[in-house]
Amino acid sequence: MIILNSKGRQTLHDKIYNQIKNKILSGELPPTTKLLSIKNLAIELSVSRNTVDYAYQQLFAEGYIHSKPRSGYYVSFIDPEFLPSHCQTGAPPGQILKDGKSYSFDFHPANISPESFPVNLWRKLYIDSLKENPKQLASYSNRQGDTALRYELQKYLARSRGVSCSLEQIVLCSGLHDSLSILAPILKENHSQFAIEDPGHFIPKTVFRNHSFSISPVPLNSDGLAIDSLYKTKSTVIYVTPSHQFPLGYIMPVANRLKLIDWAKNVGGVIIEDDYDSELRYYGKPIPALQGLHPEENIVYVGTFSKVLSPTLRVSYMVLPYQLLTIYNKLFGDDYSTTVSLLDQRTLSKLMEQGYWERHLRKMRTVYKKKHDAIIQSIHQHFGSQANIIGQGAGLHVVLELVDNSLTEEELIHRAKERGVRIHPISSTYLHKSSNNPQIILGFGSMSSNEIDQGIELLYKAWYLE
Amino acid sequence: MIILNSKGRQTLHDKIYNQIKNKILSGELPPTTKLLSIKNLAIELSVSRNTVDYAYQQLFAEGYIHSKPRSGYYVSFIDPEFLPSHCQTGAPPGQILKDGKSYSFDFHPANISPESFPVNLWRKLYIDSLKENPKQLASYSNRQGDTALRYELQKYLARSRGVSCSLEQIVLCSGLHDSLSILAPILKENHSQFAIEDPGHFIPKTVFRNHSFSISPVPLNSDGLAIDSLYKTKSTVIYVTPSHQFPLGYIMPVANRLKLIDWAKNVGGVIIEDDYDSELRYYGKPIPALQGLHPEENIVYVGTFSKVLSPTLRVSYMVLPYQLLTIYNKLFGDDYSTTVSLLDQRTLSKLMEQGYWERHLRKMRTVYKKKHDAIIQSIHQHFGSQANIIGQGAGLHVVLELVDNSLTEEELIHRAKERGVRIHPISSTYLHKSSNNPQIILGFGSMSSNEIDQGIELLYKAWYLE
Repeated sequence: MIILNSKGRQTLHDKIYNQIKNKILSGELPPTTKLLSIKNLAIELSVSRNTVDYAYQQLFAEGYIHSKPRSGYYVSFIDPEFLPSHCQTGAPPGQILKDGKSYSFDFHPANISPESFPVNLWRKLYIDSLKENPKQLASYSNRQGDTALRYELQKYLARSRGVSCSLEQIVLCSGLHDSLSILAPILKENHSQFAIEDPGHFIPKTVFRNHSFSISPVPLNSDGLAIDSLYKTKSTVIYVTPSHQFPLGYIMPVANRLKLIDWAKNVGGVIIEDDYDSELRYYGKPIPALQGLHPEENIVYVGTFSKVLSPTLRVSYMVLPYQLLTIYNKLFGDDYSTTVSLLDQRTLSKLMEQGYWERHLRKMRTVYKKKHDAIIQSIHQHFGSQANIIGQGAGLHVVLELVDNSLTEEELIHRAKERGVRIHPISSTYLHKSSNNPQIILGFGSMSSNEIDQGIELLYKAWYLE
Repeated sequence: MIILNSKGRQTLHDKIYNQIKNKILSGELPPTTKLLSIKNLAIELSVSRNTVDYAYQQLFAEGYIHSKPRSGYYVSFIDPEFLPSHCQTGAPPGQILKDGKSYSFDFHPANISPESFPVNLWRKLYIDSLKENPKQLASYSNRQGDTALRYELQKYLARSRGVSCSLEQIVLCSGLHDSLSILAPILKENHSQFAIEDPGHFIPKTVFRNHSFSISPVPLNSDGLAIDSLYKTKSTVIYVTPSHQFPLGYIMPVANRLKLIDWAKNVGGVIIEDDYDSELRYYGKPIPALQGLHPEENIVYVGTFSKVLSPTLRVSYMVLPYQLLTIYNKLFGDDYSTTVSLLDQRTLSKLMEQGYWERHLRKMRTVYKKKHDAIIQSIHQHFGSQANIIGQGAGLHVVLELVDNSLTEEELIHRAKERGVRIHPISSTYLHKSSNNPQIILGFGSMSSNEIDQGIELLYKAWYLE
């Protein structure tokens, strides 16, 4: 029974939405329950159909209910994993659990710090961009992206990452999935077998499988990629993260890099180098990109603005070697248009040209170094010798390997959840899990040092003191 | 010889860029000429290498020169077709011709009116969007797009286009290429043969070919698509533009629509309905979408903000039928993220929610109706009975069919160019050209009524009075 009183500042549809949502979360409305039709609920509550419709649509979009054509709306099975983190109205802060509780701590590796997006600066530069040549906004723009932004990127990549390329090799994209969706058909012309690091990022697996490549895992450790295994796979394309392996955080040693390049020469292979968080290195010298070692080889360099600015901007870039550029020009002709908004491109090029980018990078490096040091210290303090930290010193996550612990990943996640801590499985990054010790990926980008420490302490208690 | 005097407001690199460009355009530097190295030109002109580098990179990006690894820079063969329309510095207004002249009139069908982007309104709503929940900008957002925007789209599509769908069926994309790149792997699960309208849009051909579909053309005329031919192709997916056929402008009659839906039922087929410019209908009632006739069938509805707002925003959308939604959820899992900026999505949802969208649509309909009527009148006046107009009454282009004219398309384009008028080949939209009369596609979106009339008069003179 839904009660619509006049208390509170919520709109009518928010009240309906919240009450149904809470009934679903509390189990009062179990999965597969059929909801009243929009018409009947509107009559029952004496509100307009639109009001009920809005509430249902919002429940829909957030996955609480689903519809069957010509039948009506039904309560869905709710896996808290799939609840959106940005419910727009009425949602309590934090992540909602099935039992109505919230997560207090979320170690998601892809979340970044809320202060990472420079709102005021972005507004100023975006407004400047809006003033520029309005005629450009009335026709399709350069398919590879704005010249000015590519010029800034080329200088930045040469200076900071040792990437050697010309403007014409740079292609602006909307994130890794988009870059790889452009690359896959290009590579399909001459290749059919694709190798990935194991463990490794999930997106390349998805995209290349969707393009009918066969996928082979190649194991790795702190010495780098197992090149012998790579040869055995017969693959001729590989996706690697040499500057900061995802998820294990290793840096690929130079000897291993040279062997990998040698492999590409020997088999006529292509290396896709994803430098996703290379800006965030807290100790020692930055690691130059693989691409810079042999720029004339078939190495595709991929980078992003998602880690240092915002993952919601959807701007990334790749550098195509000349051999692939020729096929790109053939497959993605003049009818193809970049997926990145011109106004965002203009804003980014101003940000880089006027020196704000380097300043912002320095600021974020300081912010994240503090969080990084906090998590390392906190793990040492609470876990002591009962955990090893893998891949520290860079990026937005570390991997925790538990010693003397025989809990399964499922149990670890479940026990953490019981204490209000959200952790994310590492098993989905493995095709073949070889390690015997349980591993957990801990992203620290979005949390304060204090929250990190509290979260780590709760994890220790959940896993060793229960 | 490059002269760097202190006259004028151009920067040094713009002076170098412009002088080399003009030498290339005038033929003084013919194709394959090797340019001085950056180092040597810098020494010769007593400027920094960076200055020369910037000039070369800009020439590069605009296609005037190309590089050969370890050798240097060479003058490219310049096809005026490929010159970007937005050279950022020093470029004369209008399109540059090989001989240095400009196009005075450009009938490109994809260009829209410069006033179509409401700069001030967009600025206001974008700034409002920047103020909202900054935490959202620090984590990956909903892979199908922002709930609020999908809610507005769902209402708009139901009201204006007769599209029947729920929020969960709507997926935000970055243009047709992006939509189809998501669709192709989904369809690949159960289909391998793809049919297109002939003549028809080029992008679907490209994308589905890149995904290893075999492609079959299906002829059409004012009675609609040749359904018998469609059956013969054995295809089980077809891309159609029923509201305003691209490029011929026909409206698919209802009888033909029902036969097409019947085909989908009989062969287990999927219809991709692209409603790209349906908002722009100048006479008679709007044509409801095919999707609304049988929403429970496998009809994918595709629409865009490119025609009425700006093609540089890169925002479009599609509505997936439930059967395909299930495969979408499988292939594009939680690791997939939308390609559209969250700030743009928020801005668009405010634009729609606050009623600006409908007002803007009405305004643009009036603007384009004027241009449309101008081109029709002008063609009647100058060509009289020597040309038939195909597909009038909607959209941003018409097709001109010449009577008693035996010029080839190449000759038509060349003669128009001689008079400073840029027209675009229609032959690239045909797989099998059946018509005997020459056809020309004329986009009128970006030109004033006056320019349209002058351009049409020049075309008549070029084709009939020479």
